Amino acid sequence: MADLLERYGGVRRRSVDLAAPLSAEDCSAQSMPDASPVKWHLAHTTWFFETFVLARVEQPHAPFHPRFLYLFNSYYESVGAQYPRDRRGLLTRPSLDEVRRYREHVDAGVTRALERGDADEQVMSVIELGIHHEQQHQELIATDVKHLLWCNPLRPAYRAPLGTSGRVAPPLSWHAYPGGLLEIGHAGDGFAFDNERPRHRVFLEGWELASRPVSCGEYLEFIDDAGYARPELWLSGGWARVREEGWQAPLYWERGEDGWQQFSLAGMRAVEPGEPVCHVSLYEADAFARWAGARLPVEAEWESSAAGAAVEGNLAESGRLHPELAGSGSGARPAQLFGDVWEWTASAYGPYPGFRPLEGGLGEYNGKFMSSQNVLRGGSCATPGSHLRPGYRNFFYPPDRWQFSGVRLARDLR
Amino acid sequence: MADLLERYGGVRRRSVDLAAPLSAEDCSAQSMPDASPVKWHLAHTTWFFETFVLARVEQPHAPFHPRFLYLFNSYYESVGAQYPRDRRGLLTRPSLDEVRRYREHVDAGVTRALERGDADEQVMSVIELGIHHEQQHQELIATDVKHLLWCNPLRPAYRAPLGTSGRVAPPLSWHAYPGGLLEIGHAGDGFAFDNERPRHRVFLEGWELASRPVSCGEYLEFIDDAGYARPELWLSGGWARVREEGWQAPLYWERGEDGWQQFSLAGMRAVEPGEPVCHVSLYEADAFARWAGARLPVEAEWESSAAGAAVEGNLAESGRLHPELAGSGSGARPAQLFGDVWEWTASAYGPYPGFRPLEGGLGEYNGKFMSSQNVLRGGSCATPGSHLRPGYRNFFYPPDRWQFSGVRLARDLR
Amino acid sequence: MADLLERYGGVRRRSVDLAAPLSAEDCSAQSMPDASPVKWHLAHTTWFFETFVLARVEQPHAPFHPRFLYLFNSYYESVGAQYPRDRRGLLTRPSLDEVRRYREHVDAGVTRALERGDADEQVMSVIELGIHHEQQHQELIATDVKHLLWCNPLRPAYRAPLGTSGRVAPPLSWHAYPGGLLEIGHAGDGFAFDNERPRHRVFLEGWELASRPVSCGEYLEFIDDAGYARPELWLSGGWARVREEGWQAPLYWERGEDGWQQFSLAGMRAVEPGEPVCHVSLYEADAFARWAGARLPVEAEWESSAAGAAVEGNLAESGRLHPELAGSGSGARPAQLFGDVWEWTASAYGPYPGFRPLEGGLGEYNGKFMSSQNVLRGGSCATPGSHLRPGYRNFFYPPDRWQFSGVRLARDLR
Amino acid sequence: MADLLERYGGVRRRSVDLAAPLSAEDCSAQSMPDASPVKWHLAHTTWFFETFVLARVEQPHAPFHPRFLYLFNSYYESVGAQYPRDRRGLLTRPSLDEVRRYREHVDAGVTRALERGDADEQVMSVIELGIHHEQQHQELIATDVKHLLWCNPLRPAYRAPLGTSGRVAPPLSWHAYPGGLLEIGHAGDGFAFDNERPRHRVFLEGWELASRPVSCGEYLEFIDDAGYARPELWLSGGWARVREEGWQAPLYWERGEDGWQQFSLAGMRAVEPGEPVCHVSLYEADAFARWAGARLPVEAEWESSAAGAAVEGNLAESGRLHPELAGSGSGARPAQLFGDVWEWTASAYGPYPGFRPLEGGLGEYNGKFMSSQNVLRGGSCATPGSHLRPGYRNFFYPPDRWQFSGVRLARDLR
Repeated sequence: MADLLERYGGVRRRSVDLAAPLSAEDCSAQSMPDASPVKWHLAHTTWFFETFVLARVEQPHAPFHPRFLYLFNSYYESVGAQYPRDRRGLLTRPSLDEVRRYREHVDAGVTRALERGDADEQVMSVIELGIHHEQQHQELIATDVKHLLWCNPLRPAYRAPLGTSGRVAPPLSWHAYPGGLLEIGHAGDGFAFDNERPRHRVFLEGWELASRPVSCGEYLEFIDDAGYARPELWLSGGWARVREEGWQAPLYWERGEDGWQQFSLAGMRAVEPGEPVCHVSLYEADAFARWAGARLPVEAEWESSAAGAAVEGNLAESGRLHPELAGSGSGARPAQLFGDVWEWTASAYGPYPGFRPLEGGLGEYNGKFMSSQNVLRGGSCATPGSHLRPGYRNFFYPPDRWQFSGVRLARDLR
Repeated sequence: MADLLERYGGVRRRSVDLAAPLSAEDCSAQSMPDASPVKWHLAHTTWFFETFVLARVEQPHAPFHPRFLYLFNSYYESVGAQYPRDRRGLLTRPSLDEVRRYREHVDAGVTRALERGDADEQVMSVIELGIHHEQQHQELIATDVKHLLWCNPLRPAYRAPLGTSGRVAPPLSWHAYPGGLLEIGHAGDGFAFDNERPRHRVFLEGWELASRPVSCGEYLEFIDDAGYARPELWLSGGWARVREEGWQAPLYWERGEDGWQQFSLAGMRAVEPGEPVCHVSLYEADAFARWAGARLPVEAEWESSAAGAAVEGNLAESGRLHPELAGSGSGARPAQLFGDVWEWTASAYGPYPGFRPLEGGLGEYNGKFMSSQNVLRGGSCATPGSHLRPGYRNFFYPPDRWQFSGVRLARDLR
Repeated sequence: MADLLERYGGVRRRSVDLAAPLSAEDCSAQSMPDASPVKWHLAHTTWFFETFVLARVEQPHAPFHPRFLYLFNSYYESVGAQYPRDRRGLLTRPSLDEVRRYREHVDAGVTRALERGDADEQVMSVIELGIHHEQQHQELIATDVKHLLWCNPLRPAYRAPLGTSGRVAPPLSWHAYPGGLLEIGHAGDGFAFDNERPRHRVFLEGWELASRPVSCGEYLEFIDDAGYARPELWLSGGWARVREEGWQAPLYWERGEDGWQQFSLAGMRAVEPGEPVCHVSLYEADAFARWAGARLPVEAEWESSAAGAAVEGNLAESGRLHPELAGSGSGARPAQLFGDVWEWTASAYGPYPGFRPLEGGLGEYNGKFMSSQNVLRGGSCATPGSHLRPGYRNFFYPPDRWQFSGVRLARDLR
Repeated sequence: MADLLERYGGVRRRSVDLAAPLSAEDCSAQSMPDASPVKWHLAHTTWFFETFVLARVEQPHAPFHPRFLYLFNSYYESVGAQYPRDRRGLLTRPSLDEVRRYREHVDAGVTRALERGDADEQVMSVIELGIHHEQQHQELIATDVKHLLWCNPLRPAYRAPLGTSGRVAPPLSWHAYPGGLLEIGHAGDGFAFDNERPRHRVFLEGWELASRPVSCGEYLEFIDDAGYARPELWLSGGWARVREEGWQAPLYWERGEDGWQQFSLAGMRAVEPGEPVCHVSLYEADAFARWAGARLPVEAEWESSAAGAAVEGNLAESGRLHPELAGSGSGARPAQLFGDVWEWTASAYGPYPGFRPLEGGLGEYNGKFMSSQNVLRGGSCATPGSHLRPGYRNFFYPPDRWQFSGVRLARDLR
């Protein structure tokens, strides 16, 4: 419990720290319906603890503000109605300062409950869930702020500039796996989301996984080979997007007089050939793989390949908030499995055999999104390390590009 | 080859026969972008044979009309540009009569090629593919005409009235399957689409499959139990549709003074409690299953359950063009696996391990749609029987409702 | 009354004759929400007589079909609900043949009423109105069919080809008018729409009116002078359209290898420099005028200039259905005031001082559209001559281009 | 010039003062494309002086920031490209503080130019124009903030609460005007926009003008008489809006348990029967007038009625920012001609005969909007008094409701 309290405090502080380089104005704007204002993230994660923890342990519970239940509910139908998602940027009130006070108020309540021992096992597991929920929103703060700042022609930076080296990635090689009747899914007692369970058997033919993510340099070859102009490389839905939205490169890339530039949280900088390509949709990842004579892994291949690997790499803790040049990748294992970029898989996001969502309102957390999305694996440069596991399943829609999403190739074992 | 020629002729005639009850006006209109005019179907299937057969066996090939290559290309980017899909109803020329002449012209060419022996093995396999392609469009003619006629407040009928009986379906029971390391996918030499291949191993835990599709009577219970008003039953995307489009029942159902009516190709008639429910989206199928304490099958479960079953039932050949009351379902197997309604599965439509699309332009036939759709199994009352196989994979988007799509329940083996 | 009966019969026959070159398919399609199928025009004009005449003189009146009241009501809220305007192309039933029978049925009823003397003065005035209403729809048949045929890449022709001469228009000169306190609006007993009344006084400063409409040759100079690329020439709403819709020339113009071509009811042909430019929006007419150092006339200027002029010119009766090369324009008056092209005025369409709409449902005929549209004057090559008067007010929205609309310049008297 | 300098300073300070009750977050958000963030208004009005004054008097002129020319250009095509209007709420940078510094910088430059005598007559007339431009934006700040705050379910207030009295308006009477050949338009040397010129003759029949604007109490009678449910009262475009957007009352009105409430800049309060009705579209004003057996005035009637009247009333200077209960209206003239609410006229916004826009880029100020809008007269509770004249022409689109727009009735002289 002391551990839980400490982790609670640490994670909650981290969210506020993430907003520190931003003005109140920066924290209040919403650049598109998929993204939310930073202030909203700070309030919603607090709403989560107030709704699912304080309202249970405090009897009676006096809400911090009677309308916050409505304003900061994201999508929990069982909890009540929700302020329209695409209008969150209009909520100039409560102010950022008041949201900070809201956080302090709820933090005090949660802390009190933990210290007094008012939190039974079930409540503690909800607090654990809330901590992971907050970490998810920390990543979204990074991706959503990046999108917002990019919409501004001034292209303001969130953090200090990053140097460039011009170095290319180490040669890509392949790691072979024999396949067979394997097990994936969360095993053991540690925390995992409901969608990672139950652990179950899958049969896989042998496969190979690339030694590292696809680099910007490799992706430039795809672009230069007319990758965005050849329909035979694309899924039908992807080709429709290419034409409708005029895609010619990953999101945030711009061709300037001095070659390709990209917007990062450190401002505009040259595209680094050695860094993993980032901000590509599933459609682009899939088209690249087809062009390269390979394919995307299914999630069971990815998870089996990563089994036993340590969760370490270029994660949110580094503060870089941008993918990093691959190391030499000596190893027995594929490099950069964790951190840098989320890796699109060919697997549609669905329930594992025997899946059971959480009871009650929290059952809406993951299960109801199991349609029309694809699974991504591995975490990114914006994911807190303590948030990840080899069995972690992230999920986004095929056209989504504003996440730190990249490409890891796979192929059938020859 | 004589067999191929005979089947070619028979299937081609069948398409024209399907249009016989319709006027030229009926055949020219398009009710929504997802549906096409009957005339367009008749021309496009002909275009398929002209483009992929005649243009190969006739050297040089003089096109029937220089612009038909453009007008009647559906989505083959490698063949050339396409007239916009959502504007097909504006093509009042060529007339239905001219399209019939186009069919005769191409049929003569294909027949000549087959009779003369100009068609090598590869060409014959394309003709085989074209026959199956034509059968797919025969089903689309039925579904698209149904949607068009329903848009007309006069609610005209395509065929003679169907009687009603008021009988309910036989009790639903469960067939148990032990699971294990199984094989699915097309085996053997007979025709199959590329997406049914290769045959491959999958591991499944034990499951149970319902003895028949969900009936209208059971679906009415779901409606009466506020199924369309309870968000906890729905996938997030489904609930959004329910609200945006005001869904309160399957497509074509209307609540009148005398209870629920439904539009059919035989005109308006009372909802029959014993008939399989039809014209539901994946979202509705999934919500119903959740409400019923069951789930949808994954496609490997469905295919394994159907292995060895004869392809027979209420298929297009019956001319009913409407699902039929379930029989007593005596049997060792689930009833109504083939015909009546396509059965939504929980499986996203994707490539089988080791999938290879056809070479050349025909590679666009199936593979490029392997994103964001779900597989349906079993065929419907509008599917020609000779078109089906246990391994057949149909696919539509989760919100689609204008196909003859219904619900077969599954559950984990206890 | 005999005269009325004769005119009724003649105008009604003319509508059917207009459809003669078209197939049932051609008559059933709708190319955009602003346009209607020919079949719908034929039915709606009949609905007008059934609703406003037969239902009054026949007691009781048995409707030809119980749903036609709904299907063919255009916008008369006081009569009842209306089938959605943008879905008229889905009404493949009733068939064209049945609509013809509907016409015959109603014609017999109206004829009987007139012959028997059942029609009192009020009813006869409604029949008169219905005749003019039918003539309006005859023009719409021409404009709507033109748009539909143009949407077809085959570019089918409605009538036989028209020759081209390459001749340019006679030099444009100016006719001067001193202005003063003038009268406009309908005077006397003859038929006029309510919106042309009452005759009233307006004060005008002196003006000049161009001797003929702007020619295609002159409009080409505007195009060549980057007219579509210079925002300073355009109203704000016009410039927005130029960019959003990529306007680069009038509707139906295409730049080919051999120069500018235009689609006409006689098929594709070269742009004739001497013909009046046609199918321009108010925005284009206004931008051209600004570029030319002139302006559009206000409707009082136009009407005063045309006072006393005979209604003659290239009208629907000529069967040309396309603007014609200007004559030498000898005259005391501006040439081509009537026929060829409707002439955009700078006047917003609004009520004359003292305007009173017709009583009852027919009050919806004109008055409720007096917002956001501009007045056009003079009639076009698709307007029946007997339909026009110098005081006639046509009206369309500023971006509309599918009517036979052109440009007549004016300027202040120096 | 000293006077100009003084007025410049006063008006510029007033804009900053208007933002004082707002947070930086409030000033940065945009509630709809028609409205702009307060910060953007503060920057754009400064851009106006920098672009049209400083860049002319300072040779060379060093821009305050190289990108502000782009970011804060509203619609001046001749000046350059513009940041998309509907994305102004994404400009979290520059911060409100930096915009304040921008204002100080430009103010120092303008002041210096005036003090040094660098501003010739033409420049001084542009400064005069800029002062009036700034006053227009002061009104927009009030209307746009009102809309933004209303979008927030917390319904925050901009100013202190306003009391309510429940009093009704004095009886409405009519002032008669004989008509004849009159003159309207700006006369004399004082400032006026180009669209108010030239003074010119118009002929009017006699008319009557209501003694005061329509009150909320009268408008409630219209609502209670099913005004929003009777299509015969509405222009076609208005009725379409009623149905599409579900209009049932003016913008900002809500029916609660205690009757009608309305949102104001002073927060939620009961609808006051005696106050002029406000936030109605032209469509609603027109429908109300028809219901009341009257009509809207044309702008020449309004201006003639107001000729010689003093510009006084409930204007921005009162700080009320809400319409006020009509006084007893003793007088020889209609009451409340200036202030309280803008009064919709039946006149489309167009050029006066002989209209000449300003030279150069400033010619885009008014002229290019002369299409599809209607003129409003008189000013509102948010209009600075020194900004108004009897000949002042405001203009908005028929469906617009977020301005302080109300209804003044007129009728023909009997």
